Amino acid sequence: MGDDTTHSSQNTDPWRGRYADRAAGMVASEVRALFAVASRPEIVSLAGGMPAVGALPLEEVGDMMAGLVRDRGAEALQYGSAQGDASLRESITEVMAREGIDADPDDVIVTVGSQQALDLVTRIFVDPGDTVLTEAPTYVTALGVFAAYQARIEHVPMDEHGVVPEALDEHLTRLAAAGRRAKLFYTVPTFSNPAGVTLAAERRPRVLEICRRHGVLVLEDNPYGLLHLDAGPTRALRADDPEGVVYLGSFSKTLAPGLRVGWACAPAAVRAKLVLAAESAMLSHSAFAQLAVDRYLRTQPWDEQLKEFREMYRTRRDAMLDALSATMPPGVTWTRPAGGFFVWLTLPEGLDAKAMLPRAVGARVAYVPGTGFYADGSGTANMRLSYCFPPAERIRDGVRRLADVVGTELSLRDTFGRAPASAPDQGPQTPAPDLA
Amino acid sequence: MGDDTTHSSQNTDPWRGRYADRAAGMVASEVRALFAVASRPEIVSLAGGMPAVGALPLEEVGDMMAGLVRDRGAEALQYGSAQGDASLRESITEVMAREGIDADPDDVIVTVGSQQALDLVTRIFVDPGDTVLTEAPTYVTALGVFAAYQARIEHVPMDEHGVVPEALDEHLTRLAAAGRRAKLFYTVPTFSNPAGVTLAAERRPRVLEICRRHGVLVLEDNPYGLLHLDAGPTRALRADDPEGVVYLGSFSKTLAPGLRVGWACAPAAVRAKLVLAAESAMLSHSAFAQLAVDRYLRTQPWDEQLKEFREMYRTRRDAMLDALSATMPPGVTWTRPAGGFFVWLTLPEGLDAKAMLPRAVGARVAYVPGTGFYADGSGTANMRLSYCFPPAERIRDGVRRLADVVGTELSLRDTFGRAPASAPDQGPQTPAPDLA
Ligand SMILES: Cc1ncc(COP(=O)(O)O)c(C=O)c1O
Ligand SMILES: Cc1ncc(COP(=O)(O)O)c(C=O)c1O
Repeated sequence: MGDDTTHSSQNTDPWRGRYADRAAGMVASEVRALFAVASRPEIVSLAGGMPAVGALPLEEVGDMMAGLVRDRGAEALQYGSAQGDASLRESITEVMAREGIDADPDDVIVTVGSQQALDLVTRIFVDPGDTVLTEAPTYVTALGVFAAYQARIEHVPMDEHGVVPEALDEHLTRLAAAGRRAKLFYTVPTFSNPAGVTLAAERRPRVLEICRRHGVLVLEDNPYGLLHLDAGPTRALRADDPEGVVYLGSFSKTLAPGLRVGWACAPAAVRAKLVLAAESAMLSHSAFAQLAVDRYLRTQPWDEQLKEFREMYRTRRDAMLDALSATMPPGVTWTRPAGGFFVWLTLPEGLDAKAMLPRAVGARVAYVPGTGFYADGSGTANMRLSYCFPPAERIRDGVRRLADVVGTELSLRDTFGRAPASAPDQGPQTPAPDLA
Repeated sequence: MGDDTTHSSQNTDPWRGRYADRAAGMVASEVRALFAVASRPEIVSLAGGMPAVGALPLEEVGDMMAGLVRDRGAEALQYGSAQGDASLRESITEVMAREGIDADPDDVIVTVGSQQALDLVTRIFVDPGDTVLTEAPTYVTALGVFAAYQARIEHVPMDEHGVVPEALDEHLTRLAAAGRRAKLFYTVPTFSNPAGVTLAAERRPRVLEICRRHGVLVLEDNPYGLLHLDAGPTRALRADDPEGVVYLGSFSKTLAPGLRVGWACAPAAVRAKLVLAAESAMLSHSAFAQLAVDRYLRTQPWDEQLKEFREMYRTRRDAMLDALSATMPPGVTWTRPAGGFFVWLTLPEGLDAKAMLPRAVGARVAYVPGTGFYADGSGTANMRLSYCFPPAERIRDGVRRLADVVGTELSLRDTFGRAPASAPDQGPQTPAPDLA
């Protein structure tokens, strides 16, 4: 299946038939070509998950980096340890403390974004055929990682309060009855990508209890936690179960993805294995990137910066929610995120978000269709809208254009019975990095 | 096997028994603890493979980075493409042209050091139980990668002119007769780590022909090619077989490992799969690191810098070779590298390099024992000595101390029959990154 969706001309591939089985699970997203078109300036992209790094004080950041090379170049330009810089790991424990986590710097391993942490955790836990449970919809590139390790991905439903504990318990009980056990439960409990929902406080201890009872490791992916737009920070799952949770964090959304600094915080034995896996995967992460992030945290007004980011994203979120209320036809519903980057929209019966995308791009607005966020072909009626990157005015324009497209689809549906459907979904796919 | 050699207290690991099978192949090096001791300043370390980045013009590099953030910060701090920055990929083709390679920027994918490229190539080609052939001794962390993907690692002997083509042909013929086929032939043909030898020009077409005939992909790992100390650059294997070779390159040794910029140059279909694997592994590499390397190459006098590096390493190599000749007892032999970082030393009959290491550290000199560079327990009489990092005077001191230790071992051997042996080897192990 991988072979006919990659870019290369497979007919002339001299290595065809020689790839590992897992390479078949690495599939390029079908909508990728469309997004190349969607990057044209006249199109409002509500598709990308790129943070607004233009808001950083570039002059100061540049000076800081120059100082870093001048003062500590021999270290910043050299190989570092595979676990990551000790001073940065200490700073990271302070970042996590904002969400109630009491961790030791030794519990932390620094990774190339939290994406690499996802890869490494899966690498040490998942054999081909092992089951990984995820809430759904969920982060598309996590599905890609699980698929690349040939996991059997199964979903647990979520509602506007996050994953449904009863459904999780039932699913795990059903697996046990069938003689199977999930290795991981993957969740983005706070300001989720793509659903834009947060696991309710009262559900959190229940989710932990259920996973503990079934012997399943919780993989808590939390890149958006500090981008809370209404209330203060949410208490992390890891804060209440240090042995049962591997927590993933990232500076991609709260500082800059271009340095690729993320981390995992894990129980000691798991952390030790992650370090060995990281050495094999890349020897060590960039000492420069790590020292730069640490110096930024220790010398620059990060809290002010976070406040600015939050204000900006709040304005953009409100612009999106207001425009949706003002323009969307009846029958369209969407989530109301209290933080993070994303709104999850559901089209009325009979409409197909993937089939509609070319027409939306024709109307100069882009989004990510919902099917990519499921491993089971669900999500045809859904789309992810992100408010992180375009300014508020562009967001309003984009939503207005989108509402027009939906309106036209609805009248097509009412005339012809239903709008044209898209091709059946192909399971986990790899989007371009800026769409993840 | 993995479980009892990692640092963690496995008795209390709540996830014991839940790891993937491949995690058993991730084993910490037993000599790691010793090297923590060996980093004390009074000890001359001939163990590490760290390049002499202190020789870089730190002031200029710092200014360049500040300029990069100032001029192009919104791009440098943002997510990039998974294949890597297009301008850097163009620069990389020019770097490879120095070794006779005619490649298109589209053939290149930028990776987190060439280590990540090794990981990704193995990921897309190697299923558990697949055979990977390597020359021996070979790069220890490559063995670690192959082991982590549960490959069956087999060795082909090399001599002072590199891998022996007849032995390669025979081995592949033997595999075919047994109904097996190797997926990869991994080689460091130029200034190898750890052997310090270079594949002779007349052998190169033969190696390519043999691998082509047997349908085996050549994985050419070449981080040291531009650090030629006697003659000009060597023509790469990839230069003569673009479809049969995946070439790995790196700026770790010719510029700075702390930015973690390496690459793979691969046939189109392979490259496409590598990009998908890279997205899954890390979304994208650091845009900042890539733009910094590209800006360095385009605006700074890299050729002058390379010349300086070469002069420095030539002085150090000569210091090591002279000191070895002047001080080593009869019966000790070693290679004479024409480039790169390493000398491979063979002890006389009855001496064991791993068993001797604690005594060497006691005498304030460190090296890497030879067994780690084989997957089959060979190398007990060998050690790798690196001349890249300590200044010439320190190298001379270190070699002198080492010669004393060897002399003492020899008299022990002559008195007691043979020197104490070390424990049997455990196969591929992961060293600390700075020892790789
Ligand atoms: C839920 C989630 N996890 C992980 C990541 C990976 O981010 P990074 O690798 O940049 O830290 C993202 C990025 O979009 C994300 O949304
Ligand atoms: C032969 C060889 N290959 C690959 C590497 C990895 O280097 P990097 O990942 O820094 O490019 C090294 C580093 O020591 C090496 O010696």
